[in-house]
Amino acid sequence: MSYTLKSDFMKKASIVSIGNELLSGQTIDTNVSWLSGKLLSIGIPVVSSYTVGDDTDSIIRSFNLASSDADLMLATGGLGPTDDDLTRQAFAKFLDAELQLKDELLQKIKDFFTSRNLQMPQKCTIQAYMPAGAKALANNIGTAPGIMAEVKDKLLIALPGVPSEMKQMFEESVLPELKGFVTDQNVVVRKLKCFGAGESNIAELLGNLCRRGRNPLINCTAKHGVITLHIVTTAKDKIQAQQMAEKDEKLLTDKLGELIYGTGDRTLAEVVDEKLAQQKKTIAVAESCTGGCLARLLTDIPGASRYFTHGWVTYSNSAKTSELGVPADLIEKHGAVSDRVARAMAQCARKRAGTTFAIGITGIAGPTGGSEQKPVGLVYISVDSDSGCETKRLILSHGRDFIRLRAAQTALNMLRLKLEG
Amino acid sequence: MSYTLKSDFMKKASIVSIGNELLSGQTIDTNVSWLSGKLLSIGIPVVSSYTVGDDTDSIIRSFNLASSDADLMLATGGLGPTDDDLTRQAFAKFLDAELQLKDELLQKIKDFFTSRNLQMPQKCTIQAYMPAGAKALANNIGTAPGIMAEVKDKLLIALPGVPSEMKQMFEESVLPELKGFVTDQNVVVRKLKCFGAGESNIAELLGNLCRRGRNPLINCTAKHGVITLHIVTTAKDKIQAQQMAEKDEKLLTDKLGELIYGTGDRTLAEVVDEKLAQQKKTIAVAESCTGGCLARLLTDIPGASRYFTHGWVTYSNSAKTSELGVPADLIEKHGAVSDRVARAMAQCARKRAGTTFAIGITGIAGPTGGSEQKPVGLVYISVDSDSGCETKRLILSHGRDFIRLRAAQTALNMLRLKLEG
Repeated sequence: MSYTLKSDFMKKASIVSIGNELLSGQTIDTNVSWLSGKLLSIGIPVVSSYTVGDDTDSIIRSFNLASSDADLMLATGGLGPTDDDLTRQAFAKFLDAELQLKDELLQKIKDFFTSRNLQMPQKCTIQAYMPAGAKALANNIGTAPGIMAEVKDKLLIALPGVPSEMKQMFEESVLPELKGFVTDQNVVVRKLKCFGAGESNIAELLGNLCRRGRNPLINCTAKHGVITLHIVTTAKDKIQAQQMAEKDEKLLTDKLGELIYGTGDRTLAEVVDEKLAQQKKTIAVAESCTGGCLARLLTDIPGASRYFTHGWVTYSNSAKTSELGVPADLIEKHGAVSDRVARAMAQCARKRAGTTFAIGITGIAGPTGGSEQKPVGLVYISVDSDSGCETKRLILSHGRDFIRLRAAQTALNMLRLKLEG
Repeated sequence: MSYTLKSDFMKKASIVSIGNELLSGQTIDTNVSWLSGKLLSIGIPVVSSYTVGDDTDSIIRSFNLASSDADLMLATGGLGPTDDDLTRQAFAKFLDAELQLKDELLQKIKDFFTSRNLQMPQKCTIQAYMPAGAKALANNIGTAPGIMAEVKDKLLIALPGVPSEMKQMFEESVLPELKGFVTDQNVVVRKLKCFGAGESNIAELLGNLCRRGRNPLINCTAKHGVITLHIVTTAKDKIQAQQMAEKDEKLLTDKLGELIYGTGDRTLAEVVDEKLAQQKKTIAVAESCTGGCLARLLTDIPGASRYFTHGWVTYSNSAKTSELGVPADLIEKHGAVSDRVARAMAQCARKRAGTTFAIGITGIAGPTGGSEQKPVGLVYISVDSDSGCETKRLILSHGRDFIRLRAAQTALNMLRLKLEG
């Protein structure tokens, strides 16, 4: 599901990614996503994106396609010093302009190397060339300047493809150029993060709030069990847009209740972190099938040592007994993957660690090891505290990695609900 | 660095990514890179890629563009059950065909929910519709079947955008369909995976073997400390291409020695897994700063229970003492982040678990908690075995996540070198 923000009063952007490495399995293009988010946040929706190899004709063709879609064409990649970096040449051809050597750019590139006690490789001279009529955009952490030109009321900008350089140049050199480009339309995006129901369940709960063309537009994306609801509001007046978004935020919160765990880009672990720290509570974990995934999620957060003290990965039955004290006959009677063993793991872990909460997880992550009664994907999760021990039984699918991660996330969510009382 | 494999006798592919979330900063598209690598490895280079929002006209336009570039058009995304999933409709319009309800597909979707004790949401019915004349491609882990149709000697295939579903369907349902599609030009790609040196070091060791235009082409990519060397060989004769690739594989192996840990897409954990299992050796881990990352890497591998029995995440000093038996005065004297404590963690863990090897890791993952003497990024890793205890001191950078993951990977690499003798 999705934003549809194309509307006549807004300027639109199209992104062109250039580089053979993007089309050969070597490199995942992260620039499109980053640039799209940045542009949307200033009210310029990206409507299309083209990826082509290092080939002059293909680059020019993609500039033409982007130009037919949008008012701003933003290209990344192909500005390096080697023979297969052809964006500069393609840009000049697209403008029907000559490439000209710019002395001040050459000096800047030489200075870049001098300041690092290095000799400028001869090949870098090409980076001091600009198409006639184009403007150079400063690159303060690399040698390749960006290129910007107006073409028939549209703006074409080329930046290096290295994400760190591209991002810094976008912030420092491109954003100021877009000031006059942004219309008076304000886009406010709010995000609500949910866990505990599938995308289609949430869509049903929301009914026609998710209809296309509504303003605010509400749409939802799913990743690792987390459903993100985006409230995208467009209005001429910024305060009005904010008020509309807030109203919808309340509406959704009322409808979805405790399914919503937070706002913005927060993860379940961050929400749990904040609540544990605020309430000065502590947690220990005893993991079997998740093999450290849950401990890792908790300790991904800086400062986790305030509440996380002990974790066990008791992968074998004997470790469950020797390290946690789960009775061997309990495991023998019910099996390691059972409600009873999950409970015992949580209870024993809490006793050993002396924490407010402890979580026990046992299950079958697969791909083998399942049976008819206990299939791959069967997971038991127990959360033990002074108020008792709660156990959930899940049947997960989508393969080992997904099963492990989803089980760990479900455990965090159970803990979150306990912390919310 | 880059592949340039376009040539007239080879069939080409173009990829279409569909989803507003790809153009709004929400989601990084990893499918293009994965599919490009897979297609290249069977000799079908990807020459272009188009990303569009969930909009029927835009999707049809991108199918037309892809069709003008390539023989195989592979689309991902927009096959979900909600109103803004429009790839199915666009596919039908592109074929100029009706959408028809397929009873056998509907039954399969119902079964998917029944087997999970769930009711099928009404909205999912749409996923049982196929354009007339198109073939459904089985989806064994989700509800959306893929769609395949021949259009004027070209092949158009649409798959779900969720990477786990897309990948499994590509391997299981698409690859078999492409058998007759591959031409007489043979591309053999071999990969060598290295750990323990940086990209520029490896480039220096290889010298002009990495030059452009060489066949095989050798190029290198880096991710999470793992350097992948791609040997890309092109020849009319398959056996000749294989022989050329093998010759280069040997050449590189001689030059890089133990820096190479494996071939293909293998991870360090998979190599360690294989060696532990072959040698019937066992491993326990005691982690502090990595907080479960190392246990998780080891247990990511199916069947890890053959050799992995015990893991501890002793995040607090008291847990190091109570759970592992690290003497409290040792921690007090040297600090928790010290050579001595890492050794004690490994030695105590091995003693408790009774394993062939044990690893202890302690360090400062940051962003705070560092000092001049013990900066953020300082990590000690010890591997204990019958032949003694080896300890490495690292200073890592690039932030908490990177420090934790790189420390865990380095530990795996130390173990790998021990297993190789």
